[in-house]
Amino acid sequence: MTNEALPTLAILGGTGDLGTGLARRWAQAGYRVIIGSRTLDKAEAAVADLRSVMAQRGVADISVEAMDNQGAAAVADIVTLTVPFSHQVSTLEAVAPALQGKILIDVTVPLVPPRVARVQLPEGGSAGQIAQELLGDEVAVVSAFQNVAAAHLQEGGGVDCDVLVCGNKKEARAEVIKLVEAAGLRGFHAGMINNAAAAEALTSVLITINKQYNCHAGIRITGLDSHG
Amino acid sequence: MTNEALPTLAILGGTGDLGTGLARRWAQAGYRVIIGSRTLDKAEAAVADLRSVMAQRGVADISVEAMDNQGAAAVADIVTLTVPFSHQVSTLEAVAPALQGKILIDVTVPLVPPRVARVQLPEGGSAGQIAQELLGDEVAVVSAFQNVAAAHLQEGGGVDCDVLVCGNKKEARAEVIKLVEAAGLRGFHAGMINNAAAAEALTSVLITINKQYNCHAGIRITGLDSHG
Repeated sequence: MTNEALPTLAILGGTGDLGTGLARRWAQAGYRVIIGSRTLDKAEAAVADLRSVMAQRGVADISVEAMDNQGAAAVADIVTLTVPFSHQVSTLEAVAPALQGKILIDVTVPLVPPRVARVQLPEGGSAGQIAQELLGDEVAVVSAFQNVAAAHLQEGGGVDCDVLVCGNKKEARAEVIKLVEAAGLRGFHAGMINNAAAAEALTSVLITINKQYNCHAGIRITGLDSHG
Repeated sequence: MTNEALPTLAILGGTGDLGTGLARRWAQAGYRVIIGSRTLDKAEAAVADLRSVMAQRGVADISVEAMDNQGAAAVADIVTLTVPFSHQVSTLEAVAPALQGKILIDVTVPLVPPRVARVQLPEGGSAGQIAQELLGDEVAVVSAFQNVAAAHLQEGGGVDCDVLVCGNKKEARAEVIKLVEAAGLRGFHAGMINNAAAAEALTSVLITINKQYNCHAGIRITGLDSHG
């Protein structure tokens, strides 16, 4: 059942495993979720697929809709971007007017194929900084979810991975941490948007580890009770 | 008791909490350890202090010596650098000839005071890449230990933090992982030296979290058994 007191969420480029994983978890937590894509067809296919998986799990009363990216960005209160790095700028340019005054959750990881296990941060420092620079101060860019394996989000249960949440506005980070928790993970205020570089770079390290262990690695923050 | 089959270790700029923390743990594991500093006096004071702490813990038969940085680098088989970022290049230039053919463990974190909680990676990409570039291909630079709180190393027991080990030579990384384990931690092959950027950037995120929780945070790699 959708809780109307909660913000409406859009996930742009949301047809991939990460986007639909977030969509499932947020919809199940009562949020109205809109999956956006460059073409409405793709978004509709993703929503149909998601509904069928949820029905198999016995979950029917969720609010998930399909729109194109512009429509989704316009309707939502908080917009999440889950596109490949090569599409980050063009997607943001297309929806920038609709994002003014809103929070953009940037999940972009600046991987440069084919060497995705190698850290290759962009000239602007990080994908998060690129987004903030492009969108201007009226959009609160918050980077998050770079280190969470899509495969784990697709599963139903808890995820053994923490989320580093970076952005220049503390209130915006706090809103995103609520969404991290709604998705079943633990989120941390991890500093200004510059610090997105840490989470983005870490993804290539986790890919390196995944290859060695044939796994989907993540990270946990430790030592929180080690006062001093 | 020193095990003569083990490599001799030098810790340059090893008089701080991180350097002496590693020295204690490696000496206790049977390694011959040399603490280096710019002046012999400072190195000798650090060794005396370390011996007294170890004696209080009932550990007497350890091999820890004091030298200046050049002497320490010349004598050791594996050299660790634990200086502030502002001293990294000058220290390496002073000892470069003595490092040829050896492994350099670079612990440098490119923090830019006073904003140490803000990721500000250097132009070269990372401190690790700066070291590898400066020293040339005959020195195997391996970056490690950036995310371990010195306070935890100073304690006697296990440390709830993993170590990301980056470097261009797999064999050199493997040697360093042995030393990580000798210090009581878990080490991971984390990719080429470029990937040092991830661990270096993560330190500012951990500093950000330390301020919020009044703690010494670290990281754990999770999901290693999540095959797929």
